Parts: sequence; C-alpha cells; structure tokens
Amino acid sequence: MANGDLFNKMTLALDTDIKKIERIRAQLLMKDSDQDVGSVLYDLQQSLKSSLDTFQVKEYEIERTLEKWLLLKQDLNLAREVQKTIFPQDNIYLSNFQLAGFTRAASSLGGDYYTYNISNTGVNAAIGDISGKGIANALITIMFDSHYKNLVYQEMSLQDILFSLNQFFRGIVSNYNGLGEKFMTFLAFRFMEKIEYAGAGHEYILVNRADQKMCERIKTGGIALGLMPELMGQFSHGEIELNPGDCLVTYSDGITEARNEQGSLFGLDRLVKQVELHSHLDPERVIQKIVENVDEFQGTHEQYDDITLLIIKHPE
Amino acid sequence: MANGDLFNKMTLALDTDIKKIERIRAQLLMKDSDQDVGSVLYDLQQSLKSSLDTFQVKEYEIERTLEKWLLLKQDLNLAREVQKTIFPQDNIYLSNFQLAGFTRAASSLGGDYYTYNISNTGVNAAIGDISGKGIANALITIMFDSHYKNLVYQEMSLQDILFSLNQFFRGIVSNYNGLGEKFMTFLAFRFMEKIEYAGAGHEYILVNRADQKMCERIKTGGIALGLMPELMGQFSHGEIELNPGDCLVTYSDGITEARNEQGSLFGLDRLVKQVELHSHLDPERVIQKIVENVDEFQGTHEQYDDITLLIIKHPE
Repeated sequence: MANGDLFNKMTLALDTDIKKIERIRAQLLMKDSDQDVGSVLYDLQQSLKSSLDTFQVKEYEIERTLEKWLLLKQDLNLAREVQKTIFPQDNIYLSNFQLAGFTRAASSLGGDYYTYNISNTGVNAAIGDISGKGIANALITIMFDSHYKNLVYQEMSLQDILFSLNQFFRGIVSNYNGLGEKFMTFLAFRFMEKIEYAGAGHEYILVNRADQKMCERIKTGGIALGLMPELMGQFSHGEIELNPGDCLVTYSDGITEARNEQGSLFGLDRLVKQVELHSHLDPERVIQKIVENVDEFQGTHEQYDDITLLIIKHPE
Repeated sequence: MANGDLFNKMTLALDTDIKKIERIRAQLLMKDSDQDVGSVLYDLQQSLKSSLDTFQVKEYEIERTLEKWLLLKQDLNLAREVQKTIFPQDNIYLSNFQLAGFTRAASSLGGDYYTYNISNTGVNAAIGDISGKGIANALITIMFDSHYKNLVYQEMSLQDILFSLNQFFRGIVSNYNGLGEKFMTFLAFRFMEKIEYAGAGHEYILVNRADQKMCERIKTGGIALGLMPELMGQFSHGEIELNPGDCLVTYSDGITEARNEQGSLFGLDRLVKQVELHSHLDPERVIQKIVENVDEFQGTHEQYDDITLLIIKHPE
C-alpha cells in the first residue's frame, strides 16, 4: 500500500536520525570535550525515540483503518452491482413509443430512481429522487422499487399509487433518528395513447415538439413524498399528448444543479438547449448527448449529486 | 479528533527536536570546538525537517480519509435503520403459537434474514443467511424480502417458493463480477396445525420437546439458493408437529461459529444446551438468554458474523 510505503520511509528516516545522534554522542564522549552537549544530545535521542514509538503505534492503527476503508469501498462497488438490478436492463423501442433511462450515482450508491415497464393495460414509467445521498438512500430505492412495481401490478390509478407511495415512504422514514427529514420527489407516467402523469414535487417535464423544434417546460407541482400525511390533492395530475417526433425528457436535479469549476450551475436553460438540439435522435443517443454535455460543463469539478434521465419519445 | 491530537503532539515533538538541534549547533559553532560534529548535526536537522514535511503532507491526507470514513459510518448507521424496517416489528403471541425473532449484524448492515407473518391461509416464517457479509448483502436482503413476501401472498407451495427464490437469487448475482459466488441458505415455514418446512442448505432446526426436556436436532438439507440452476428435488421438505410447551429454534451460523478469545467455537452443543435450559420461557426471553450466552462466550472477541434467531413455540 502506498500509505505504508510512505510511513516506512519516514520510520526509516527517524530511525537513521536516532542512530546518527548515537554516533555523535559516542564521538563527543570519547573526546570528553563537551559533556553538556553530550547530555543534551542524549535527551534529544530519547525524545526522538519516544516520537518514533508514538508514530509506530499510530501507524498501525491508521493502516488498519485504511484497510477497512478499502474493504468498504470494495463492498460498496459490489453493492452498486446489486442496486443496478432494479433499473431497466434494456431500452424499449416500439413503433409508437421509445423509452430509455440513465442514472449515475455521485458516490458508489445512489438515491435517484427511474423505471419503466409494459403491462397489458399500458406502459408505466417513473422517476424519483430521494433527498440527501448515500447508502441509506440506496436501500430505500430498492424497497421503493418493489413497492411501486406491486402497485403498478395492481392496476391502481396514478394518484392512488402516489398516495400509497407517500404512506410507504413515511413508514420507512418515520420513527428513526436522522431519517425523519427525508423526502422523495417523484413523477409517475402511464400511457397507451396520451401520457398521463402524477407528480410529487419533482422537476419539470420537458417536451420537445418536433413541428416547432421547441421545448415546452411543464411545471409538474405536487408535494414530495414523505413531507405530509396522506391528504387528497397533494399530488399534481395532468395529461400530455406526444405527436410523431416529439420527445419527453425528465431528469433529476443532479443534472440542472451540476456545477463547473467556477461554481456556476448547469441550469435548466442549458438542459433545454440540449433537448432541443438532440431530440431528433434515438432516446439513448439523446441521453448520451446530455450526459456528455453535463460532464464537459463540470470539467474536473466532482459530480456532487446523483444524475438521472428518463426519456419517452414518439418516433416519427 | 483524537487522531489529530496525536498527530499534533508528534508534530510538536519533532519540531522541538529540530529546534534543540539548532541550539546545539549554535553552541558548537560559538565554541568553534568541533566543526565536524556541527556539520553532522546540520545534516541531521535537515533530515528531521524533511521527515516532518513528509509527515505533515501525509497527515493531511489521512485526516481527509478519516473524515470520509466517519461520514460513511454515519451513513451506514442511517442505512441500518432503513434495513431494520424489513424485519418484523413485533413478536406474535397467540394462544396456539408464539413467534419471535432477532438479528444483529457483525457490522452496520447484515446479510442475515428472518421474517414471519400471518395470512388467512396460515402462518409463514423464514430464516436465511447470505454468504459473506456487508452492504451488498444488505441490499440483497431487501430485494429478497419483497420477493419472498410476494410469493407468500400468491399462496404458492413452499417448494415452489424456494424454486422461485433460487431463480430470483441467481438473477441478482449472475453476470456481475464478484457476486457470482454468492449463495444463500434458507428455511421457509408454513403452518396452521403441523409445521411444514422447506430447506435450502440452512442450519439444523432444533425442537425442544417439553415432555422429554430434550432437544431434537433436525438436519434440514437441501442445496443453498444460487448454487444451482432450477432443478426439481434440490430443496428438502418435511413436517414437524409441535405439542404444548414445545419450542422450535432456528438460527444462523453466526451463533454456532461465534468464537471466544481462545479461538474456540460456540458450537451446536452449547446452543442446544441453552435451548434445553430456557425453552420453558417466552420466545423473546429464550432469544435473550441465548444471545447473552453467546456474548458472554465471545467476551472481548469481536462478533465476526451476523447472528440471527427465529423461534416458533407452542405455548403450554
């Protein structure tokens, strides 16, 4: 380990210093020229020895912590592979619609969520973002995924699904220290012809209209899951019609709140511009273009939040 | 931070050493008595300074890693609270049976699993143990829990449930580096009158018979989930009758493989003895007694594996 090498180098250096002092002391004592200097050097040697002892005990502790840290990082990478299994494994490209999604966690495990699937009543898709980040959020996404898919399977209305998810989310985060303030923004879609959506405090829905080559920004509204007890009307509800060539883009705020080295935000306008520029492409390519643009913007600035995109396109 | 204090102490000690050498050099130069010793001391001083520089750079890096480590530990504690929500929140004490369980992870998050619930077709209970330990396992327990509960809800046979869980487990761990070798021992119970069980390579079922004051050891057999493709007959199946006062105890190998400071195993015999001694008590108390005994046995030896207990008792 590189850390160990550096410590060894320093231990060796201090050890050599102590031996040098030993030699100087012997030299001084033989000549018997300067007893004072000899005794000061003796004290010095003892003091260096004691520093070295402290250092070696500490070194051992640090090495152990660093080893644990390394194991934990490996464990997190393994956990990331497990978490991946909840996300759709493939794009869906059919004649009347195309679906693709993407998520990248800021650290090993993320708290962003997206999904889509086809059942006999239509297509369901969703995107969400749990406040904060980290391992706890990753665990919640997994629980949330199972619960959401069950509700979809039961063919409940979108609003009923959001009511149930709110109750579920409150159930997880209530009564536990440190989890109480967690909430989750969420957007659920269902469609056969028109796209129906229900929102819980999530970001805009962007719809690029092929005929106008312009992007609509639909404010979705609603109150995030977990913030309030179950009340009628706390979630928004709407419909969107996609015509051939139209492309609907949803995202998590990790995209718009990405920062560059100067501290500027990527922002909604930059995202809208990317959507307008690339919506003629396949959803997978649109995602690729947006992510490349965000990465380019961020430069060497570390990705601070999880980033997620979900695209529904009506092919031409 | 304590680590910082120790580093500061050592930095100060080395700094003082360097200044002492400076004074000795001045003393020697003034007397002009021993130029040789003076120049050796000068080299020594430079060398100590360089050690100190290395040390300070390293110290900064270590401090940052330790801070990250601390944040991760906090995150893991939060994640532990999330994971807890999959385990039964209460004991079930009815006139014809009592159910209680317990799990304690070796680190913040565990890979042991247990559950129980009552539906209109009877009582379902299960215990399982994923090989290895850590965060990835915790994520799998959460996915597994949802899937198992769905299967129970669909009122499948126990063997069909295990077939499906095997497929599910293989689905999670296949295709991912490092996860391929994972498997999960598992025991599922269902009962109205008699207790039916199906096993996938899990530990013994212990049944303390009240009339004989003796513990039967039932070897459950079957092949652990994830080890083989779905084949008929790879899981064991059996029935157990509990009479009033009888107490059925299942456990994970973290109990029997707990070690004391001398490296000895807790072992099955010690566990059986505890079950025989305490089975007249309520399941919750039986658990408490066993865990106390394991803890006493372990002494200062660190808990190496997750420990889990699930008890089904027919009250007197």
